[in-house]
Amino acid sequence: MSFDRLIEKIIEMKNPTVVGLDPKLEYVPEFIQRRYLDEDGWTLKAAAKAIFAFNQAIIDEIHDVVPAIKPQAAYYEMYGHYGIKALEKTIRYAKLNGMFVITDGKRNDIGATMEAYTNAHLGTVMVGENELEPFAADALTVNGYLGTDGIAPLLKVCKERDKGIYVLVKTSNPSSGELQDKLIGDTPIYAVMGDMCEQWGADTIGKYGYSAVGAVVGATYPEQLTELRKRLPHTMFLVPGYGAQGGGAEGLKGGFDENGLGAIVNSSRAVMCAYKKEGCDERDFAKAARREVIRMRDDITSYINLK
Amino acid sequence: MSFDRLIEKIIEMKNPTVVGLDPKLEYVPEFIQRRYLDEDGWTLKAAAKAIFAFNQAIIDEIHDVVPAIKPQAAYYEMYGHYGIKALEKTIRYAKLNGMFVITDGKRNDIGATMEAYTNAHLGTVMVGENELEPFAADALTVNGYLGTDGIAPLLKVCKERDKGIYVLVKTSNPSSGELQDKLIGDTPIYAVMGDMCEQWGADTIGKYGYSAVGAVVGATYPEQLTELRKRLPHTMFLVPGYGAQGGGAEGLKGGFDENGLGAIVNSSRAVMCAYKKEGCDERDFAKAARREVIRMRDDITSYINLK
Repeated sequence: MSFDRLIEKIIEMKNPTVVGLDPKLEYVPEFIQRRYLDEDGWTLKAAAKAIFAFNQAIIDEIHDVVPAIKPQAAYYEMYGHYGIKALEKTIRYAKLNGMFVITDGKRNDIGATMEAYTNAHLGTVMVGENELEPFAADALTVNGYLGTDGIAPLLKVCKERDKGIYVLVKTSNPSSGELQDKLIGDTPIYAVMGDMCEQWGADTIGKYGYSAVGAVVGATYPEQLTELRKRLPHTMFLVPGYGAQGGGAEGLKGGFDENGLGAIVNSSRAVMCAYKKEGCDERDFAKAARREVIRMRDDITSYINLK
Repeated sequence: MSFDRLIEKIIEMKNPTVVGLDPKLEYVPEFIQRRYLDEDGWTLKAAAKAIFAFNQAIIDEIHDVVPAIKPQAAYYEMYGHYGIKALEKTIRYAKLNGMFVITDGKRNDIGATMEAYTNAHLGTVMVGENELEPFAADALTVNGYLGTDGIAPLLKVCKERDKGIYVLVKTSNPSSGELQDKLIGDTPIYAVMGDMCEQWGADTIGKYGYSAVGAVVGATYPEQLTELRKRLPHTMFLVPGYGAQGGGAEGLKGGFDENGLGAIVNSSRAVMCAYKKEGCDERDFAKAARREVIRMRDDITSYINLK
């Protein structure tokens, strides 16, 4: 009912990072694409099989170094229900390998409908007398624009099933300020949203001081990251934008507390496409991903105080 | 590249309403549940087959009365990839029956990822040399919290493929005001978001004066609906909250322009569960849905000036 499970993995592995599995087909080495596309034809089904095979090989190579993966739902929805099946299988495979899974879905809706999203991604669904777990992730990213009754169903399941959520607070993209930086009185909207996260999480604080309600805060805005760390002492941050989007490791420092906790930094493309950047044989893509996650871990932990 | 296609259907049918297909399994009559669950077992697959059969029967009965359906993605995700397959099939079946399809996904993300959602729901995806349409809806609901670069990929596809979006502006739920009513200077956030819709849609205005960028404005807030209609002359409204959520037909008036256009009103549960409310034989559920959509049409059009 907090992020303790994730934080324990972070401490154990001395690694506050998460690998975003956002497998565009163009990221998948050609030998894997050929294996599936030539066999099954150029179909959504074949594409989904190829991305799952790609994900599996990466998980095999990184699961003993990185505590968590963050599959981005959009890159699975791209391949229709076949893609969603690949998402389900990716989540299951990562969990079998001991990883914590954050589904990046940025879901949001009014209460009754949010309950359906919650049950789908973090909870269970009743079919007749069977209680089934459709996706079974450990955490989900969500958008808080609809206020408390769009969040309440999530909090219930977080408590009952030891799950977590990350609410969009200050996103990493260039135009995030258009709405998020606007002032309500003296307070920017992102800080108001952050304050709501503190409230929503208030009765789920775990032994490391962080609740089950985290916040998404982009690495591309280091000042706000530092400001929000101070403002939101019980809210763990999921920090996208390191690497490919331009956020450097030094700028991340402010997102962590004095124990090197309180944040987990995501990298997607730099890991999935490490083999392209290295220029190594594409058959070596998973080992290249491993080299990149080790490099990222060492880069980030050199700036923080994680014991 | 505007909502002209939808507006023409509304004029032709003299009916500015849309049926939300949010098929919780408990809404599906028992004889359909038995047909699929007893045959296939109490699985997500069987549940998904049951909801598709339910949707098909409703579409058969309403497609000559109602211009559009609005499947809510959450109620399909609840059944994992089998549910998503039922969503794909529901969209295809509704389009075969001449209906306009609005996928209610409230999707949102940063630019590159939003492109993936856009291609999935409204556009096409390349697999090898094949250009495939995963979901092929006509419109998608989205959340604008991330600003322009989370909307730009949608605008591109709206223009290229004659699609539309509805951005969350003032949602129908009780807590929508927590963030949306807060003031930026003198202007509530929902109005700022509405102004952004006007800007985003500015170069896609169609022959009825409405752009490809609509707004979601709840029937439960008739004052704001009226205020926003005046403020956002080129933004078509998708209005949830009529009926089950407590919004009455008279309160909807302010959402329409002087020609009875500019809004489409959604009803979900009242249509899907009309047979329960009527107390008729459950085998008569689709006819009961038809009776309810006719009642709704007559109720709403009695207050507006649609010729």
